[in-house]
Amino acid sequence: MTMKETKVYSIGERALISRLSGIFNTPEGKERGQEGILVGAGSDDCAVLDLKGEDCLVVTTDMLHRTTDFPPEMTPWQMGWMSAAVNLSDIAAMGAEPTGLLMAIGIPADTEIAFIEELAKGIQACAEFCETAVIGGDLDTHAELTITGTALGRVKKSHLLLRKGAKPGDLVCVTGHTGSAGAALEAIQSKKSVSENVLKALFEPVPRTKEARKLAESEAVTSMMDTSDGLAMSLYDLARQSKVGFRIREEALPILPEVEDFTSDPDELLEFALYTGGDFELIFTVDPGRLKKVQNICNLTIIGECTKYDTGIALESPEFRLTNIEQRGYLQLKAENS
Amino acid sequence: MTMKETKVYSIGERALISRLSGIFNTPEGKERGQEGILVGAGSDDCAVLDLKGEDCLVVTTDMLHRTTDFPPEMTPWQMGWMSAAVNLSDIAAMGAEPTGLLMAIGIPADTEIAFIEELAKGIQACAEFCETAVIGGDLDTHAELTITGTALGRVKKSHLLLRKGAKPGDLVCVTGHTGSAGAALEAIQSKKSVSENVLKALFEPVPRTKEARKLAESEAVTSMMDTSDGLAMSLYDLARQSKVGFRIREEALPILPEVEDFTSDPDELLEFALYTGGDFELIFTVDPGRLKKVQNICNLTIIGECTKYDTGIALESPEFRLTNIEQRGYLQLKAENS
Repeated sequence: MTMKETKVYSIGERALISRLSGIFNTPEGKERGQEGILVGAGSDDCAVLDLKGEDCLVVTTDMLHRTTDFPPEMTPWQMGWMSAAVNLSDIAAMGAEPTGLLMAIGIPADTEIAFIEELAKGIQACAEFCETAVIGGDLDTHAELTITGTALGRVKKSHLLLRKGAKPGDLVCVTGHTGSAGAALEAIQSKKSVSENVLKALFEPVPRTKEARKLAESEAVTSMMDTSDGLAMSLYDLARQSKVGFRIREEALPILPEVEDFTSDPDELLEFALYTGGDFELIFTVDPGRLKKVQNICNLTIIGECTKYDTGIALESPEFRLTNIEQRGYLQLKAENS
Repeated sequence: MTMKETKVYSIGERALISRLSGIFNTPEGKERGQEGILVGAGSDDCAVLDLKGEDCLVVTTDMLHRTTDFPPEMTPWQMGWMSAAVNLSDIAAMGAEPTGLLMAIGIPADTEIAFIEELAKGIQACAEFCETAVIGGDLDTHAELTITGTALGRVKKSHLLLRKGAKPGDLVCVTGHTGSAGAALEAIQSKKSVSENVLKALFEPVPRTKEARKLAESEAVTSMMDTSDGLAMSLYDLARQSKVGFRIREEALPILPEVEDFTSDPDELLEFALYTGGDFELIFTVDPGRLKKVQNICNLTIIGECTKYDTGIALESPEFRLTNIEQRGYLQLKAENS
C-alpha cells in the first residue's frame, strides 16, 4: 500500500471522481418519491433536484484554498468575491436564478479581523451583484485559509440548461472573452506587466447571472456550461454529454486586445484562449433558426458549430486547416502534480 | 493592527459571526420575490427558503478538519460517516426530510486512494441510513484533510421546527443519552478505557432523521434543535430564540450506564452531561397537553420544563436546590484558543 499508484496524486481528479461516484451510487435520473434527482454529481455544473411543480432546484459547492486558488497578489476583498463567484457562475451555467449562498470559512487563528471583514465584504458584493444573499455558513479555525461556498438556484424545468442537448448544426457561442484570466496568471508568474483590465478578469471574475437567465428564457439555447476550466475542457464536456463534435474557428475566438498585446507568439495566444481556465464566461449552443432571439441578449461571439460526435473537436485555421483541440486545461489535482 | 485584539483568536466564534452577519446583511424574514428567506444565517441549525407551495427548503453547511475535528483513533470510514452526520443532524433538527448531500473534500496529495474510498463509503453509509444520497461535490488537493458537507432537506411549512416557539410550561425532552461523546473524548485524551458503546457515540453519531420527522408531524413539538454543541449551549440557544427560561432536573438527565461507570466524580458526570458536545441528539419542547402524541415516537426523556425568560436557565438538584447552568460548551474557536 505504499506504491505510488495507490496515492491520490497518481490518478488525477477525474479518475478519483469516477471511483468515488461508484461508491456514492449517484442516483442520476432515479426517482426518490416526490424529490427526483434530475441530475446527479459529475455530469453538470450543478446537481438538479426536482421540486414539486414547474421548477427545479440547482445546487453546487466549491472548496478554495489560499495557496492553491488565490494568487498572492489578490486582496482579501477579491478572495471573497472569487469564492462567491465560482459558485454563482455554476448556478448561471444552468440558466438558473440564484436563491442563496452558504459560506463555510476556515480561518487561521492569527488572521487579522480586518482581513476577514474585507473578505466578507467581497462575498457580499458578489452576492448582491447577482441579486442574491448569504443565507448561512460555518466558521472555524484552520491552518490555511479555506473557503467552501455552496450556491442554490432555481429555474423552470422547461428552461433548465444542461451540458447535454446540443445537436449537429447548432452554433457555438461564448460570452465575453477567452484566455484573459490565463494571460493574467502568466503575467503574474513571469513578472511581466499586463493591463489592469486583464488582471481584473483573474481577480474579479464576473458570473454571467443575468445573461444566463435571459439565454435560458430565450428557448433558443440547446446546451450551456461555464468556461472556468478553460474552453477546451468545456468543449470536451459538452461533446461527451451531448454526443456531438465541434468545429471551432480560430479567427473567431474573442480575445481581449490587451491579451493580444501581451504576447507576440500566436501559439501562446492560442494556449491562453483554449487551454487556460479562470474565465467565468458561458459557452452555449444555439439552434441556428433561433439565433436572432439570443443575439441581443448579451455580448456574444459565434466561435463555431456542432458537428457529428465521431468527427471530434477540431480547430479551423484561417487557411481552413483542421487540427485537433486537445483535452487539457485547468484541473486542480493535475495542475499541482503534473 | 498587530495588537492581539485585532486577531481572530481574540474574539471567539460567536463575536466573529456577529460581525460578519452585519456585513452579510442577512435578510432574515425579508421577502425576495417568490423566494422568501424564512430563516437566515445564525439563528437556527439551517437556513430556510420558502418554496412555492406548502413546503420549505432547509440547507446547512459544516467544515471539518482532520486535526481539529477527527480524533486520531477514528477510521477513515468513521470520518466519512461523521462528515455526513453533522450536516444531516442539522436537517433533522428542523424536522425536515433530507433530500441530498454535497461533499467538498480537500485531500493531501499523498493520501492512499484506499483511505479516500473508505471515507466515501462512510459518507455513503450515513446518507443511506438517512434515506438520502450524495448528489454533488468537489475534490481538490489540500495540505490537511478538510471536508465541507452541505445538506438539503424539505419540510412542510406547517411542520418546520425552529429554536423559536417554546412557551413557559412546555416540557423539555431529549432523545437518547447526553454526555456520551464527551466522555469518550475524555477517555481517549486521558488514555482511560471506556466501553465500545461510548466510543461509538463519539465516532459514529447517529442523526435522528426518522425521529425528527415524526416529531415534526406530531404537531406537539414547539421548538427543536440538535445537541451537537452540548446540552447547556443548546438550552441557551433555545432560550434566546424562544424567550423562555428552563428548569432542568439533574436526576432526569439521561446518561449511559457505561458513562456513569467511567467516572465516580458526580461533578465530572454533570460536566459531561451538560457541557460537552458531539452528541447528535435532539432537544425539543412539547406542549404538555399533547405529550401523549410524542411519547411513542422514540426513546425520549423529559428533563425539565420551560419557565419565564427572566428566570434564566436553572438546574434543580435531587434536593430541590437550584443552580445556574452556565453558557459554555463545545465551540471550535474557543476550544482551540482558550
